[in-house]
Amino acid sequence: MFVEKVKTAGLAHLSYLVGAGAEAAVVDPRRDCEIYVEIARARGARITHVFETHRNEDLVSGAARLAEMTGAPVHHGPNPAGRVRYADCVREGDCFRFGKLRLEVLETPGHTDDSLSFALYDEGFGEQAVAVFTGDALFIGDVGRTDFYPERAEEVAELLYDSLGKLLRLGDQTLVYPAHGAGSVCGSGMAEREFSSLGYERANNPMLQYADRAAFVDAKLRERHRQPPYFRLMERLNLEGAGAPSTRWGRGLAPPPITPKALAALLQDRAPPRVLDVRAVAAFCGAHIPGAVSMPVAMVPAFAGWLLEPDETLVLVADDRSQAEEAAPALMRIGYDRLEAVLVGMEPWASAGLSFATLPMVSVNQVADRVETQQGGWRLLDVRDDDEVAAKRIDGAAHLFAGDVRRRLDELEAGQAYTVMCGSGVRATIAASVLQASGISQVDVFMGSMAAWQATG
Amino acid sequence: MFVEKVKTAGLAHLSYLVGAGAEAAVVDPRRDCEIYVEIARARGARITHVFETHRNEDLVSGAARLAEMTGAPVHHGPNPAGRVRYADCVREGDCFRFGKLRLEVLETPGHTDDSLSFALYDEGFGEQAVAVFTGDALFIGDVGRTDFYPERAEEVAELLYDSLGKLLRLGDQTLVYPAHGAGSVCGSGMAEREFSSLGYERANNPMLQYADRAAFVDAKLRERHRQPPYFRLMERLNLEGAGAPSTRWGRGLAPPPITPKALAALLQDRAPPRVLDVRAVAAFCGAHIPGAVSMPVAMVPAFAGWLLEPDETLVLVADDRSQAEEAAPALMRIGYDRLEAVLVGMEPWASAGLSFATLPMVSVNQVADRVETQQGGWRLLDVRDDDEVAAKRIDGAAHLFAGDVRRRLDELEAGQAYTVMCGSGVRATIAASVLQASGISQVDVFMGSMAAWQATG
Amino acid sequence: MFVEKVKTAGLAHLSYLVGAGAEAAVVDPRRDCEIYVEIARARGARITHVFETHRNEDLVSGAARLAEMTGAPVHHGPNPAGRVRYADCVREGDCFRFGKLRLEVLETPGHTDDSLSFALYDEGFGEQAVAVFTGDALFIGDVGRTDFYPERAEEVAELLYDSLGKLLRLGDQTLVYPAHGAGSVCGSGMAEREFSSLGYERANNPMLQYADRAAFVDAKLRERHRQPPYFRLMERLNLEGAGAPSTRWGRGLAPPPITPKALAALLQDRAPPRVLDVRAVAAFCGAHIPGAVSMPVAMVPAFAGWLLEPDETLVLVADDRSQAEEAAPALMRIGYDRLEAVLVGMEPWASAGLSFATLPMVSVNQVADRVETQQGGWRLLDVRDDDEVAAKRIDGAAHLFAGDVRRRLDELEAGQAYTVMCGSGVRATIAASVLQASGISQVDVFMGSMAAWQATG
Amino acid sequence: MFVEKVKTAGLAHLSYLVGAGAEAAVVDPRRDCEIYVEIARARGARITHVFETHRNEDLVSGAARLAEMTGAPVHHGPNPAGRVRYADCVREGDCFRFGKLRLEVLETPGHTDDSLSFALYDEGFGEQAVAVFTGDALFIGDVGRTDFYPERAEEVAELLYDSLGKLLRLGDQTLVYPAHGAGSVCGSGMAEREFSSLGYERANNPMLQYADRAAFVDAKLRERHRQPPYFRLMERLNLEGAGAPSTRWGRGLAPPPITPKALAALLQDRAPPRVLDVRAVAAFCGAHIPGAVSMPVAMVPAFAGWLLEPDETLVLVADDRSQAEEAAPALMRIGYDRLEAVLVGMEPWASAGLSFATLPMVSVNQVADRVETQQGGWRLLDVRDDDEVAAKRIDGAAHLFAGDVRRRLDELEAGQAYTVMCGSGVRATIAASVLQASGISQVDVFMGSMAAWQATG
Repeated sequence: MFVEKVKTAGLAHLSYLVGAGAEAAVVDPRRDCEIYVEIARARGARITHVFETHRNEDLVSGAARLAEMTGAPVHHGPNPAGRVRYADCVREGDCFRFGKLRLEVLETPGHTDDSLSFALYDEGFGEQAVAVFTGDALFIGDVGRTDFYPERAEEVAELLYDSLGKLLRLGDQTLVYPAHGAGSVCGSGMAEREFSSLGYERANNPMLQYADRAAFVDAKLRERHRQPPYFRLMERLNLEGAGAPSTRWGRGLAPPPITPKALAALLQDRAPPRVLDVRAVAAFCGAHIPGAVSMPVAMVPAFAGWLLEPDETLVLVADDRSQAEEAAPALMRIGYDRLEAVLVGMEPWASAGLSFATLPMVSVNQVADRVETQQGGWRLLDVRDDDEVAAKRIDGAAHLFAGDVRRRLDELEAGQAYTVMCGSGVRATIAASVLQASGISQVDVFMGSMAAWQATG
Repeated sequence: MFVEKVKTAGLAHLSYLVGAGAEAAVVDPRRDCEIYVEIARARGARITHVFETHRNEDLVSGAARLAEMTGAPVHHGPNPAGRVRYADCVREGDCFRFGKLRLEVLETPGHTDDSLSFALYDEGFGEQAVAVFTGDALFIGDVGRTDFYPERAEEVAELLYDSLGKLLRLGDQTLVYPAHGAGSVCGSGMAEREFSSLGYERANNPMLQYADRAAFVDAKLRERHRQPPYFRLMERLNLEGAGAPSTRWGRGLAPPPITPKALAALLQDRAPPRVLDVRAVAAFCGAHIPGAVSMPVAMVPAFAGWLLEPDETLVLVADDRSQAEEAAPALMRIGYDRLEAVLVGMEPWASAGLSFATLPMVSVNQVADRVETQQGGWRLLDVRDDDEVAAKRIDGAAHLFAGDVRRRLDELEAGQAYTVMCGSGVRATIAASVLQASGISQVDVFMGSMAAWQATG
Repeated sequence: MFVEKVKTAGLAHLSYLVGAGAEAAVVDPRRDCEIYVEIARARGARITHVFETHRNEDLVSGAARLAEMTGAPVHHGPNPAGRVRYADCVREGDCFRFGKLRLEVLETPGHTDDSLSFALYDEGFGEQAVAVFTGDALFIGDVGRTDFYPERAEEVAELLYDSLGKLLRLGDQTLVYPAHGAGSVCGSGMAEREFSSLGYERANNPMLQYADRAAFVDAKLRERHRQPPYFRLMERLNLEGAGAPSTRWGRGLAPPPITPKALAALLQDRAPPRVLDVRAVAAFCGAHIPGAVSMPVAMVPAFAGWLLEPDETLVLVADDRSQAEEAAPALMRIGYDRLEAVLVGMEPWASAGLSFATLPMVSVNQVADRVETQQGGWRLLDVRDDDEVAAKRIDGAAHLFAGDVRRRLDELEAGQAYTVMCGSGVRATIAASVLQASGISQVDVFMGSMAAWQATG
Repeated sequence: MFVEKVKTAGLAHLSYLVGAGAEAAVVDPRRDCEIYVEIARARGARITHVFETHRNEDLVSGAARLAEMTGAPVHHGPNPAGRVRYADCVREGDCFRFGKLRLEVLETPGHTDDSLSFALYDEGFGEQAVAVFTGDALFIGDVGRTDFYPERAEEVAELLYDSLGKLLRLGDQTLVYPAHGAGSVCGSGMAEREFSSLGYERANNPMLQYADRAAFVDAKLRERHRQPPYFRLMERLNLEGAGAPSTRWGRGLAPPPITPKALAALLQDRAPPRVLDVRAVAAFCGAHIPGAVSMPVAMVPAFAGWLLEPDETLVLVADDRSQAEEAAPALMRIGYDRLEAVLVGMEPWASAGLSFATLPMVSVNQVADRVETQQGGWRLLDVRDDDEVAAKRIDGAAHLFAGDVRRRLDELEAGQAYTVMCGSGVRATIAASVLQASGISQVDVFMGSMAAWQATG
């Protein structure tokens, strides 16, 4: 019996191929789902079932496509919003056998109403569950967020409490396979550790230490999570079943190259594409196309859904093709298919005599100076999360979350000079690029940001 | 925190890269140890420690090489046979911190005197062990063999019993990372399952269900294991520290091609190489070089150590280069470096007008006929393990374990016609090839063997 | 300026990506055409044109798909059979510029009426052609076959003569990039060499040494070529534009595994699939599923089109998945998409107690004996090409080309025992498998065949 | 017969595997020579000979290592500087046969005294040469430089003239396989085209159009080439035979990661390592470690030999590991093995509160302004080659070749503000980084440089 974890960086999404002998199932497939078929084939197995722990809101599910590719049925929990078109509906106690293993359905609502967990049994060996796929109910070091039904906040927190109790009753020996790891927006306190058991979680997961249901619910009600605007699109797609991504570029392929001249012409169009610059932040600050949004490739999963419109046509700026080939699927997995072209490097752009912008980076010493002397009229703008700001802030800094910066620009003062900061300077560059693109002329980036501030005392 | 398992097929050897942040350690590296450095680098980590759970007897350790490649020290338990030259000696309670994790040494003798386990703690999270590397003390579904010190059989079984007790005291929540999986010669009852916890093992591992120490020891004393002759060589190499494999062919490279004519000439030498045919058994039976030993590539780890001499020069026969490239490291990992060349396919050999041999395959119906009618003077020769034979046998079959067939040829009757069988026909072909090479002229292979016998009733 | 050759083994098909700077064109793309996009992208180029030298009869063109993937137009010559649906029609002298290069169209009919060549000029450098894409007009060491219009045989041979003259006038310095290399059925005397110039061909290509047009035409009229039945299907597909292959298995993926039991059940169907055994011939001879056709993976391009029906559902038998993954695209490239499943290895089949067949291999000594003594009633059946038979044969052997063996079975004598031979034993096994599947009970294979016969005198 | 070209980017070095059937030879192997063995094996061939066209001065030869790996002898021409230790000495007319091909030695001195060319004949086909390996005698669009023996300048130019004549006598049909392509420092006018024939070169190569020997010699004497200081080291290594690169990191592996803190400590050492920043220039300009030398990974082959000392210990700064893994072999191929570690990205450095430097980029408009108004005291410093400067320059710009900037710093004025320019801004950044590291405080980079200047008129 094997469980192979497929981890999608950025989204911190975890999906699984679980099987034994010649049969296997996939739990929570992502949109680029060839990988499951490949792993199954390499193990000599055929995919016979696809399971979803819940309707995902943070990524495009690959279940519909995988079902089409393999002929395997998709199993999904009861969703009050309507039937999940590409799936049948399974219930508490439903049982699936393949190979010598057995998956048993547990209804574990709370994060969503249709949340399921799947307990895994080794039929040839023992009576107890050997592992459980917990979806977004239980993570390693955290539990699922319960803020999707604000009008039923207390009810769903209680539902989750009961679901967690149901899970723990599987026993300390049970290994835990959640749908997300550290870095996901679906939780906030997940451990960096990639493996655990119910016993270890029972004793150590902070969210499982509350004295009673009331205390747990109380804690959940005080949590504050953000919902990027693209969640709405994901929910719709994952009810209907998203098709294959636009296959024009083929698998593993980024869009075609574009010359600076052709791109400059495109940008003169009445409906110009959005330029998304996926190079590292220092490169963006060094030189970039005026109006471009900075989004280093690793930040695409976390910020594209905040700062890009679902129907925008995109042109990437990347250091090289492999960087573009990493950015393209990251965009595709959250529904951004309209990639028109890639400009490789900024040197050709500058060599064509086209104008470029820069974004100054300032160091911790310079910032400390500014803060102390209040000279130059610079204002610190902190773009971190509420929690981070609450934990530690620099006096006098304004606060506006990086993901909100496009939508809440009007909260900034025209004519003000801003030094943007975050935890390290990366999100600050993203936010600063939006400010600059919006016409705020005096913007710079506090490179190192809070980390440098604390490191230097 | 991450644990990456590196699985070596055939040997069913499991080694691990465990780390957090920028630091990582390797537990029980194999000889081709570039893979650990690659995984560490891909994770942005540097290998700072190498741990060995015990002196391996079934494969060449890569610890000495890995230490040389990375500069990391090797940590090994106290070995009564002498100091492990490339390692320092660690003891119960010794503690290693890297990243935010902690490894704690547990002395768990029994399988060998120097057996250690390493408990893993997540310093940032909880007090209990989150996992344990158990080496050959505890497997998933089995425990280590205790037959290496026949004169101290009872004592070492008791030692293992106590070691297992020590392990279980780490708590049910602890994940188990053993040094071998199903298929290893280091145990006989391992589960096919690739993951478990101490809690699951405590309740389900048959060897942990004995009422008391005496019952456990009794069971261990009744076990019968085989020791392939190459174990002695491994033990010596792993005390001294094996060097890199002969790098003449470079990494990932099989030896160079040879023409049929050149090979035929080599075979006329006074000290001809051994021809090792790694094609599938049906291909071997169809046509092979007279005198060749059949060893389908997946069987190399299990049978090379039984049927090849440590200092033999080998020439491979393979279907294609990729098959040779799979066989070469499999041989190298257990100390067979002297690969001279590869002949690709048998067609060129036959086309050169060189003589070839065949080995008839007979089906279950033919065998049933022979058994029933006793015609033709054929004798069934069963080359399975004692345990398999004990579980189910065909009346009248002689028994000689496949691994022993080269050394115990004199137990067979000259002039007798043998139909060789095993579980499926694969080991039967290996053994039959040795019989045929030894001059027994009437040999055939019962294809399907016991599996077919049972399937057809 | 670069020319990247994409070589498809088996078909000996050559296609090219030619480009400079940011633009590139593809000449004669094959069906699995992602590779061109990948190479272009790796070079930072966009595919702006697709050229076809003629309507291929031996493989499915990828031009229609590639046009769809890239948006590039397809350029094809004037085809009297009707418009090539996915292409525009280009003519002598038409000129295409991209990067700093120029492609000029030469009409070079003869092999087909729509045959074009494309002369390549380096605009930045010199006036002469630097290379020419010759399609099936001129090969290295041979010229195109002219037997596709039997009623116009003389006319088309003359057309080709004139086309070759036109090509040679480009000058000795011109490099030659043909559409096929040695091993293709589109010519018979091609050199093993993979590169040449018009100067080298003018002096050394045997077909360019004729004194005059009449001598050339005479030689062409005496040539004998075979047309596998699937050519008709290719011609139709390549006029209409073949779609993507059934993508059910995804790119690079072979069909899913099947268990022996499931396959045995399938074979009981009223419309059972054809079993195609792509293992090496010795493996097939050792053991195979009764009724299976032998076709070692490297022989698929040459023999699938002769021995399989276009609409047959196929199940593969392969040694391992990678062999199946090599066979699947080879079949797909010539229009066989209906692959149902793969059985990996024959051991599971035999272990399930299912009956298997064998095909005896006999050596050159045994055959010499039979020929000499005429004992046993064996008849030699030579399945080589007419040319090979004409060059050297064994007295008394019957002749029937391997590709014809399924269609012309009635020419064999019922009850006769046949020893099948070819050049080496490979085609003999293919043919013998068809004989055996057709109920001829006494068949064996002369392993080594004519090569061994000659090697041993 | 096949010729496989192995192209090493940056050095624009071309080496070849030439073979037929089961035997192959390598012409001019590079230091990381596993690739030749891999290609040969994939083709089923054994490497039987290694040929060198001359003692390379611009890269470390892999001949000695490849001979050790394969057992094949190395063939080299007569070198007046002494015996090439790892090679035998071959002469005009010497002949090597392998497969069905023949290589014939032509002595073609001029570029070096030991320069050989190797004419390739297809024994089975024609009498004429089908191709020739021309080393550094004849390139596509250029001929070898003849400035290595200044005291014999005329003599060696004449030698080359005669060698070229000898080559051309092989005939127009002969394909040309040189040792370098466009971008190499071994010539200056090479075509971007990657293929040619002697006929095409005879008619179009500018250096083959001179009326007579005197005119040719005259032209050669007027050429100006640069000799990076590392040439001397290469010449010594390639006489003695360079060993394997330090294998501590293993094949394909870059050095291990380093933390900002550890690197900061190293840089405080008495003998601190050199920091080599291989990120794109915009990233360097955005933020870099004070004192670092900028060398975008693609520029390493061209500038490491100018700006790094042979015995310097290096620490790389790279965007990610794959960039470091590209830089490491590029350094190794020209003798820089002492790579200590890699810092991935500048964010961690800044987040650790460590100080960073920036390098302002200015656009063509700003530069035009400065030039026009002469304000700010900025001086343009052009770091291009003499030839480029001669072709087109900006009035008033000082000139100092980028490669010389470390050695000739004293030619710059202390206290002067410099705007560094080149063709595009890349070499300008490299040079500017050296200026900045040397304590010149006012330096910026003209991004776009001459290309932008010309594009905007």
